[in-house]
Amino acid sequence: MKSKTEYLWFETPKRRDLVNITGRVEKIVAESGVREGFCLVSAMHITAGVWVNDEEPGLKQDFMEMLERLAPVADYKHHRTGEDNGDAHLKRTLTGYQAMLPVTKGKLDLGPWEQVFYAEFDGQRRKRVVVKVLGV
Amino acid sequence: MKSKTEYLWFETPKRRDLVNITGRVEKIVAESGVREGFCLVSAMHITAGVWVNDEEPGLKQDFMEMLERLAPVADYKHHRTGEDNGDAHLKRTLTGYQAMLPVTKGKLDLGPWEQVFYAEFDGQRRKRVVVKVLGV
Amino acid sequence: MKSKTEYLWFETPKRRDLVNITGRVEKIVAESGVREGFCLVSAMHITAGVWVNDEEPGLKQDFMEMLERLAPVADYKHHRTGEDNGDAHLKRTLTGYQAMLPVTKGKLDLGPWEQVFYAEFDGQRRKRVVVKVLGV
Repeated sequence: MKSKTEYLWFETPKRRDLVNITGRVEKIVAESGVREGFCLVSAMHITAGVWVNDEEPGLKQDFMEMLERLAPVADYKHHRTGEDNGDAHLKRTLTGYQAMLPVTKGKLDLGPWEQVFYAEFDGQRRKRVVVKVLGV
Repeated sequence: MKSKTEYLWFETPKRRDLVNITGRVEKIVAESGVREGFCLVSAMHITAGVWVNDEEPGLKQDFMEMLERLAPVADYKHHRTGEDNGDAHLKRTLTGYQAMLPVTKGKLDLGPWEQVFYAEFDGQRRKRVVVKVLGV
Repeated sequence: MKSKTEYLWFETPKRRDLVNITGRVEKIVAESGVREGFCLVSAMHITAGVWVNDEEPGLKQDFMEMLERLAPVADYKHHRTGEDNGDAHLKRTLTGYQAMLPVTKGKLDLGPWEQVFYAEFDGQRRKRVVVKVLGV
């Protein structure tokens, strides 16, 4: 069995952003030598998520607007600690923070429009995503 | 180590539907010969999800009604592309689009009421789910 | 390849609760002997979830309040069966019910603030979480 673990670093210029990381994940899978297995992509910071959906600017805006409607910037109890990012913790929760991608015949086995995004909800600081490939 | 990959095809007569696929997944696990491992079930189209919950008609309606409340049919920016399924992309996001099912002693290791559903939010066309079993 | 499967039992005194299980999961990973692999943590009852976020009391309250806003206690169709926990099924769905944790160099490979919580939405009864470690 083979395994490979890599960490992707992000420091987005904007507070909120969607960064398409499909190509970077594909490269790690190729380097792993795994032919049949799983590739985990998981945001290691609790104000960031992983979104698998369409690379379409309008939809990306619709998605962010839905999150703002469901988990708006507001005066959260979490802010008593001095933090101001309560909404980002909740947006990560609704988005989901990890994807388990199948690897088949040495490649990411994604649907025709599935793209993998790092979803930043409290950026402008260095944060990590773990990518771990396991298989044969 | 053993692995097995299958694709389930769907073309639901209705635009929105919940299709119980527990039996089909169990069959793939049995055919894989895996005794201890993981079985990934992941919707490959970005307007469909995977829901693990109860086979109870009232609850299935409650679930769809919650999704309509949180991510309603509306005039989304995504529709500038000519599409009309912005809500379906958002409903998939809130539902989740994959399940990682444990395989123990050769069987799906589910709780007493856990059933696996293909959740279609923009049907009436051919779409796929990947089922991948990996283990020993 | 090594695998280890354990079940954690819960019977929370309150109907809703967040129970930090990070230490218990770490112990199972250590006992498994797996150095490189995946650890699945999945709630087996369909009115409970798994939440990976911050051990901060204010945030935990913010999270529960968001869920009550998005999936409130109400008169659901599910209640025609005699049940009264429709909201709990929906809260599990929005929370997510499983986490796939990477195991690297024999330890859970979590971010600096990632803590793993059992999220109970219909407690005061015995319920299970499956923890399954697989790897080399």
